[in-house]
This record gives sequence, structure tokens and C-alpha cells, in this order.
Amino acid sequence: MSESKEKSTIVLFSGDLDKAIAAFIIANGAAAYDHEVTIFFTFWGLNTLRKDQDVANEKGWLEKAFGRMMPRGADKLGLSRMNFGGLGPKMIKHVMKKHNALSLPQLIELAREQGVRMVACTMTMDLLGLQQEELLDGLEYAGVAAYLGDAADARVNLFI
Amino acid sequence: MSESKEKSTIVLFSGDLDKAIAAFIIANGAAAYDHEVTIFFTFWGLNTLRKDQDVANEKGWLEKAFGRMMPRGADKLGLSRMNFGGLGPKMIKHVMKKHNALSLPQLIELAREQGVRMVACTMTMDLLGLQQEELLDGLEYAGVAAYLGDAADARVNLFI
Amino acid sequence: MSESKEKSTIVLFSGDLDKAIAAFIIANGAAAYDHEVTIFFTFWGLNTLRKDQDVANEKGWLEKAFGRMMPRGADKLGLSRMNFGGLGPKMIKHVMKKHNALSLPQLIELAREQGVRMVACTMTMDLLGLQQEELLDGLEYAGVAAYLGDAADARVNLFI
Repeated sequence: MSESKEKSTIVLFSGDLDKAIAAFIIANGAAAYDHEVTIFFTFWGLNTLRKDQDVANEKGWLEKAFGRMMPRGADKLGLSRMNFGGLGPKMIKHVMKKHNALSLPQLIELAREQGVRMVACTMTMDLLGLQQEELLDGLEYAGVAAYLGDAADARVNLFI
Repeated sequence: MSESKEKSTIVLFSGDLDKAIAAFIIANGAAAYDHEVTIFFTFWGLNTLRKDQDVANEKGWLEKAFGRMMPRGADKLGLSRMNFGGLGPKMIKHVMKKHNALSLPQLIELAREQGVRMVACTMTMDLLGLQQEELLDGLEYAGVAAYLGDAADARVNLFI
Repeated sequence: MSESKEKSTIVLFSGDLDKAIAAFIIANGAAAYDHEVTIFFTFWGLNTLRKDQDVANEKGWLEKAFGRMMPRGADKLGLSRMNFGGLGPKMIKHVMKKHNALSLPQLIELAREQGVRMVACTMTMDLLGLQQEELLDGLEYAGVAAYLGDAADARVNLFI
């Protein structure tokens, strides 16, 4: 890619549906403006990338416990507020559909099509016991050094 | 405005009193330094801009439900932690007054006087069923494209 | 320090263990890349800097109440999610140790050694009734103006 392209990065730390939607709307908007966009998924943000089926793998009990307690994929995330035990996300998804807004899985798909780079933070994958086969295909895997390399060249750097 | 002015943008996503205060303190500080400052209010951050009286308008039941559950204006917001069912905000407001710190409504007023641009995100207004007459006067209304146009020219871009 | 050094700033607003870890990992990474890094601790983020022993000082009842309710230092912070009344942080610390990841107190120590500037926000110290003797030694004390001065020269500016 050419050096002259505007760059943007987003660290998606949060595992909340509403924040993930905001992150992808900004990322897709920036990609539409021809920015080179990278989203770094770290901590709870990694849950956005989980496949929704159970993936058999060998884990210690603690990693299994984390895996079971954390939401499995973009369609299972809760809201940062007004979650009401899962009712809030249903309401939000309902109004998004009604307004013909893209759902989070559709926003992720669009991001892929637009060439948004999605990077999973390997350090927190280790900590939370998440393995590559549990996450969506086509991701990159890297650490904080890669993030900083991109962010130092970018103007819009957000932590969400 | 001249091109040489430093630009700053803040996305206020959060509807928490403490985060809104932080956002406006940074925005007012930047404006005092002669930055061109824009705050984009999205999702729960829009609640900061609601008028505190009930505004009659036609809405579906879901939009009405959202409207009733969300805090009505800067003076009604809760804290991100130690909220204690509304006691926390009272305590914070008490100490702010004691220390002669500006309250959130005063910080918003100061921001206006200093020419901070306040932009309400039309997409989330649609989703949450918020209408222009429910929000403070003198706002701008725009979407993610406008945000990115400003952010790409700015150095300080925060997501709060 | 030379003008040509890349600069980065982080506002640490959050008092959550997981967010503080993320902030320090990014700060230490940037310092390792020879960035000039400044972390501004404001609101609940100040709790990261508290000494864990009780420090005798004269305070009003409200400041004492805040002091007692807020976690005392990096080792006492809770998680932003899956806190489970303190079990979550124990689990995270356990897995971090198992993976030989640095603990938060070690990350703070490393940041000091690498010359990361740690600045406590004097305005929120006043509001929360925190005094200098309650915080770690070797901090700087400043307000929003100092933050903006640094941020306007930096490329990576995060609000965590």
C-alpha cells in the first residue's frame, strides 16, 4: 500500500455490543474514505471475534472457565448499559433492523470486504486461553509492537 | 476558520457523568488553547444533550421505552462507578461545588461560549428514537463521515 | 529530550485493573520504541497510584468516605467485567503469573525505569480528596493544560 494513504487504528478493548458497533462503524467509515484501517482486538474485545460454535481444544480448567464465561462471538455480546440481562441487546438489534442499519456481524463482514485489517492480540489470547481455531478465519495475530508501529503512522488512534 | 488552527475531536459515547465531565474539561481546555474543538455525541453520550423537560412527540413504543429509561440531560447522569443508586453523583456534585469547580451544565455552557462545536450523531438518534426537539438548541447534526473529516485533520482524537 | 522524539500520551481515567494493564502495556511498548510517553491519571485512574498503606492525614468526612470506598493501589483494583466480587482479578493475576506476564505493580515499575512520565491530575485529586502523600513517590502533578500541551505534540493520544 502506498505511503500517502491516511492511516487509522482502533484498539477494541471492550466486549460490549454497543462499543463494538461504534468501533466498526468508525472503521468502515474510515475505510470508505480510503484510510488504511487496523483494528486491534485485545482483552474482552477478542470476544467479538469468537466463532459461535464450540471448538474442541485442550485447555486448562481456568482457560475453560474463562471460555465458558465469555460471550461467544459478535451475536452474543451484551450492552455497556441497559443490558437488562440480555433484553437490551435484543431491543437494540430490533431497532437496528427496523432502521435497516447493519448488524454487528454484517459490519464485520463489510470491514473485511473493505480491507480493514483485524489483528488479534496474542498476549491477551494467551491470558484468556483463546486459541486461533476459536476465532474467525482471516485474522492477523500480533502484539503491542505491531500496534504501535501502525499507530505511530496514523492520525486517528482510538481506544474503545 | 484558518487552516493553521490546531484541531481536536472527542467522541462522547459514554453517558456517565464523570466521563462527560472529563470530556468537557478537555474540550474547554483545548478551546482555551485556541484549538478548533468538536465533540461528537453518539449512543449514550446523546443523553448529555437532552432537555430535562418532557417533550411531546410521536414515537413508537420502543422509542418511548428507550426515552423513558435513559437519563434526561446533563444533570441526570450517573457515575461510571460508585454510583450507589444516585448517591455518588450527589456526592461528586457536592464536592465540585465546594471546590468551585464548574458543574456539567456550566461546562457545556462554557463550551458553547468558547465555540466548541457539538455534533449529535444522527444515526444513533434514529436508533434510540431521539428527536431534535428533545435535545439542546444550537447543535449540529451529522454522521460518521463528518466525524472522520474532522478527525483526519486533528491531532488529539479521543473516544470517551 | 530532543524535539524529534515521537510522543505519546495516555489519559488513564479508568480505575479497572484490566484497563490499567492495557494502558501500561501500551505505555511500556511505546517507551521501548523510544517514544516520549506521558500517562495522565485522572478520576478513578488515580487509584492505580495510591500507596497500599493507610496514610494519616486531615480530611473532611466526604473525602474520608471517598478514600475508604476507592481501591488503595494497583494491587487492589477490580476488573471492568467478570469481577465476581474480587474473584476475577485473582484469576487474571493467576494466569498472568502462569504466563510470566508482568503484574500491574511490575508494569508500573518498568514504566518508571523506562522514563514514562506519570502525571496526577490535581483537579480530580482535589475533588476526590486525594493528597500527594497518599500517592506513589516520584509523580508529577499538573492539570488539563499540561496534558493538552503534550497531546498536541503527540500522534498517539489515547483515553482509557
